[in-house]
Amino acid sequence: MSLRIKTSDPAVKALCKVADREDIATVFDRYQMQLPQCGFGSLGLCCRICYKGPCRVDPFGEGPQLGICGADRHTIVARNVTRMMAAGAAAHSEHGRHIALAMQKVGKGLLPAYRIRDEDKLYRIAELLDIDTLGKEMLEVAHDVATKTLEDFQNQDHHKGCHWISATLPDKRVDLLSRLGALPHNIDATVSQIMARTHIGCDAEPKNVFLGGIRGALADFNGMSLATELSDVMFGTPSPVVTEANIGVIDKDAVNIAVNGHNPLLSEVICDIARDMNDIAKGAGAEKGINIVGICCTGNEVMMRHGVPLATNYLSQEMAILTGALDAMVVDVQCIMPSLPQIGNCFHTEVITTMDENKMQGARHISFHEENAVETAREVIQCAINAYTRRDPNKVNIPNIKQTAVVGFSSEAIITALSKLDAVDPLKPLVDNIVNGNIQGVALFAGCNSTQTVQDESYQIIARTLAANNVLLLATGCGAGAFAKHGLMNQQATEQYAGDSLKAVLTQIGEAAGLNGPLPLVLHMGSCVDNSRAVTLATALANRLGVDLCDLPVVASAPEAMSEKAIAIASWGVAIGLPTHLGTIPQVTGSDVVTELMQEGAKDLFGGYFLVETDPKIAGNKLVEVIKGKRQGLGI
Amino acid sequence: MSLRIKTSDPAVKALCKVADREDIATVFDRYQMQLPQCGFGSLGLCCRICYKGPCRVDPFGEGPQLGICGADRHTIVARNVTRMMAAGAAAHSEHGRHIALAMQKVGKGLLPAYRIRDEDKLYRIAELLDIDTLGKEMLEVAHDVATKTLEDFQNQDHHKGCHWISATLPDKRVDLLSRLGALPHNIDATVSQIMARTHIGCDAEPKNVFLGGIRGALADFNGMSLATELSDVMFGTPSPVVTEANIGVIDKDAVNIAVNGHNPLLSEVICDIARDMNDIAKGAGAEKGINIVGICCTGNEVMMRHGVPLATNYLSQEMAILTGALDAMVVDVQCIMPSLPQIGNCFHTEVITTMDENKMQGARHISFHEENAVETAREVIQCAINAYTRRDPNKVNIPNIKQTAVVGFSSEAIITALSKLDAVDPLKPLVDNIVNGNIQGVALFAGCNSTQTVQDESYQIIARTLAANNVLLLATGCGAGAFAKHGLMNQQATEQYAGDSLKAVLTQIGEAAGLNGPLPLVLHMGSCVDNSRAVTLATALANRLGVDLCDLPVVASAPEAMSEKAIAIASWGVAIGLPTHLGTIPQVTGSDVVTELMQEGAKDLFGGYFLVETDPKIAGNKLVEVIKGKRQGLGI
Repeated sequence: MSLRIKTSDPAVKALCKVADREDIATVFDRYQMQLPQCGFGSLGLCCRICYKGPCRVDPFGEGPQLGICGADRHTIVARNVTRMMAAGAAAHSEHGRHIALAMQKVGKGLLPAYRIRDEDKLYRIAELLDIDTLGKEMLEVAHDVATKTLEDFQNQDHHKGCHWISATLPDKRVDLLSRLGALPHNIDATVSQIMARTHIGCDAEPKNVFLGGIRGALADFNGMSLATELSDVMFGTPSPVVTEANIGVIDKDAVNIAVNGHNPLLSEVICDIARDMNDIAKGAGAEKGINIVGICCTGNEVMMRHGVPLATNYLSQEMAILTGALDAMVVDVQCIMPSLPQIGNCFHTEVITTMDENKMQGARHISFHEENAVETAREVIQCAINAYTRRDPNKVNIPNIKQTAVVGFSSEAIITALSKLDAVDPLKPLVDNIVNGNIQGVALFAGCNSTQTVQDESYQIIARTLAANNVLLLATGCGAGAFAKHGLMNQQATEQYAGDSLKAVLTQIGEAAGLNGPLPLVLHMGSCVDNSRAVTLATALANRLGVDLCDLPVVASAPEAMSEKAIAIASWGVAIGLPTHLGTIPQVTGSDVVTELMQEGAKDLFGGYFLVETDPKIAGNKLVEVIKGKRQGLGI
Repeated sequence: MSLRIKTSDPAVKALCKVADREDIATVFDRYQMQLPQCGFGSLGLCCRICYKGPCRVDPFGEGPQLGICGADRHTIVARNVTRMMAAGAAAHSEHGRHIALAMQKVGKGLLPAYRIRDEDKLYRIAELLDIDTLGKEMLEVAHDVATKTLEDFQNQDHHKGCHWISATLPDKRVDLLSRLGALPHNIDATVSQIMARTHIGCDAEPKNVFLGGIRGALADFNGMSLATELSDVMFGTPSPVVTEANIGVIDKDAVNIAVNGHNPLLSEVICDIARDMNDIAKGAGAEKGINIVGICCTGNEVMMRHGVPLATNYLSQEMAILTGALDAMVVDVQCIMPSLPQIGNCFHTEVITTMDENKMQGARHISFHEENAVETAREVIQCAINAYTRRDPNKVNIPNIKQTAVVGFSSEAIITALSKLDAVDPLKPLVDNIVNGNIQGVALFAGCNSTQTVQDESYQIIARTLAANNVLLLATGCGAGAFAKHGLMNQQATEQYAGDSLKAVLTQIGEAAGLNGPLPLVLHMGSCVDNSRAVTLATALANRLGVDLCDLPVVASAPEAMSEKAIAIASWGVAIGLPTHLGTIPQVTGSDVVTELMQEGAKDLFGGYFLVETDPKIAGNKLVEVIKGKRQGLGI
């Protein structure tokens, strides 16, 4: 390898050698090519909001200190980070809207490819949203739930908070956010209003801008809550399932189809239809038929609901193609590398885009709509089978690297497991163990991969530190992918890394739940849009203890935060009261005002705050200290 | 002056000397400080969409050609420009929403400070929007119009275009836009969806991204249409009024209050209340009482409706304070320089922000809501009077530079003037004169000021070229401000610059309309949100001739396009079929694909296209040629 490969994943290291040999540039090479990265942009001091610019503020105080319009470093930095929150909210919520619109149609009997798979959850949500279900058919309830959910994209009354956020956070928190003017009333309007207030010559008071951004981040929370919960209703609420993760799940004797992206609407149907088309694949010579594997968060979605193995997470999505054995990569939305078609061209791999508003140069486009879901799924799979027949066996190189992963720990699944210990009051064992200190606290790992760090490494180091200190670990998104790939989502990891009291609790619950051993070290809560699941659990804890979320010994960590969605997630994490670790440096450090606002300022306003620490060992220790502090605050 | 002042405005030149003497940096100095500007940003080749970046593509093909994710120059450029369209749409439409929400409340009798001033227009709009008015009270109609308008922010059915755009463009154009998937169904959703599709790893096909942006630009058109039309209903439809423009309108013997920004909701009430408070101002020593002057587009709003003189346009807003005689500058939203409070501090000037989502460091904030409009207006004016008493006469320096301007040519006002020639068929004289060539075509000047050009200069040069070639000229926004300040919006200018046949037509209409002379050379159509007025006129022409907008000899020109709103306007100009001149280079030239798409590509799709030309003499000639070509196409 001519360039340094920033990963801790042995499968990625192995495949980068293939890339090197074949002279194929990967994300790691492109990162090296971009060095040194622009210092102005990295500090948040570059403004491209109007065509008088670009303007750049000199961080050393020698060159220009103001943009042409007069905006200073604080305004520029605040606007840039706030627009990221808006974009994150837009992305997650668009996914949510898509699910809600589909469910509305299911409720009208218009989408035969879909059905309501978790009726209990549907009725629980109806109750949560104050929807009268008396005398209604189940499908009518589904329609009404979707319709009320869509009001969160429609309401024009600023004084009325979004339904979902109001229904899911503790009342104390909703009241605080409302008092601060941070409670979104409408997701789309909030995104638009952030874009409007950050237009040239609008909001220039950094704290005001930042608080506007926090409204957007909370709209992100609202959008992901509804996306997650309605997905469970439509596709089933996850429960523990044993599977495998890392590139070794690609099988040379099967037609391998990777589903990559975020939205389960197509991938769910692909999973269904693949079973029907197995014989066609066998007929084409693939002895083991069709092998669906997941990448990124579509991977998490089908992994937690169907046990579909996870091939890899964001940063190494190209590696799946480099195995030479991937016949098709089907992508939907978000975090899909535009480099895929080019790499696909070096092999026989079909890269297939499916969403009309998310195309790629060089990819095959098969337009997916819920109405034609089955036909699209068939076409995609057939395309993969055809590609399989063109596969060059000499190019196949699948590192035999994979780990067992037990995944699918929705909050419902966790409560179900706990109910084996106390059927009447399932939260009691968890609360008791937190109070008595067997469990010191809870940490949610969220977020991405980034080339700014060594792929997956920080996740592992921080998790091991926290586990040794008896902190219960949850994970989503590419964080979950990292843990699954590196063998931290199985029982052996619990045995190896959990502190004694944590291990005892996990074993007690796991045994009671019939797992013949402990729960895995890190509980897989889903894709990045599923971060709301952890909030559901935390809210239940807070309500049970009669405190607000900021009082709990609960922290979040995004060791490789990269995308605008991650910035939105971290920001609402802070806004709902969580100390939130970032392992990559947010591009705000050009402004001491904004930097301070994200730390002490946020703490004063919300109780939560950003904790930026790039060294994972130090980060782990700091999070342990934060949890200890929270315990002291509660007097436990 | 130590640094070069890029302006053609003599008042600005004079006041920059004051700034120089007092060592006060203005926008012109800050521009010089920013030189050289970042080449990557200027070419659109800088991507800051995720925290793996910033990534920059080397325009010379030697350094990196791909971002870390794999996005190439075309994807990066397309995403950047598309997000600008979304932000522009958000800004204009937020203004529109604000007006619609206020009108809805007026319809419920909840806002005593406001009323319906143009009932005829209200009923015309109700008809346009298919609202049944039979048996309804006028206020109920207002409520229903506002409510139906707000559906353009709420509709979740992708197949149903926004009400306003469908009701105001020619059917042929609506059909074309619908076929291209460019018809927005909901303004907020369109903005959100653009932010979502430009998130890391989403839409990477530049044409697809750009078409998504065009949807946003058309949402901008929709938002401005509704903003303009409902503003007319609430505040009156403009009709010609004689006033003055340029810094000399500031009066040393009055309490001078500048209204700056875009939204008329507060400035209208300030105009009302100022009359009541005149005596208080006189009591404080200001012999001539209160003198309201306008800046930027709030200036245009009150100028066209109340004849309030215009002090200056965007780029020179700081100059109003430098006169030493401005007692308060009251700002609302958009295009307000964050430098104002600092310059205000060098004098006695109160800089007052009024919108909670648009604050500035160092400004006094007086929170405006429609419910407290009168109290806010009083407080603002009292604040100005108090400041007046602290004015230092030794610092007063008002260049005696101003020009007469006849403003307020709404499409209705133009039709009214034409009806003096043909009461039965008012459009006939215009159509006849276009067909017979007395009027060769129509040009709409829109857009901003930019430091990339010499302030106001290109407007004048292009306008004189077009006028000499018998092109009818319309203007809005800071373009209108430029023409008003430089004496091109009066009858003398027509005498001096109009070609013979144009002069004859303008004189015939002006005389018939009782103006004792010709119409002004450039017709003032309002603020930048009023660009839809010109489209109303063009649509009437197109419908009358049975052609589409792209067939008309109508062009648009934005010689100093600067803001995201301007990018949105220019883009919908193209999308509705207009050849649209930009005098500043859009930050897209790093991609030949996007550059081609905005020119030949757009022409194929929409008939309209971008015509980029920084030399105003050449631009004027090119526009004349374009108009000739359109005439040939029509066979006239």
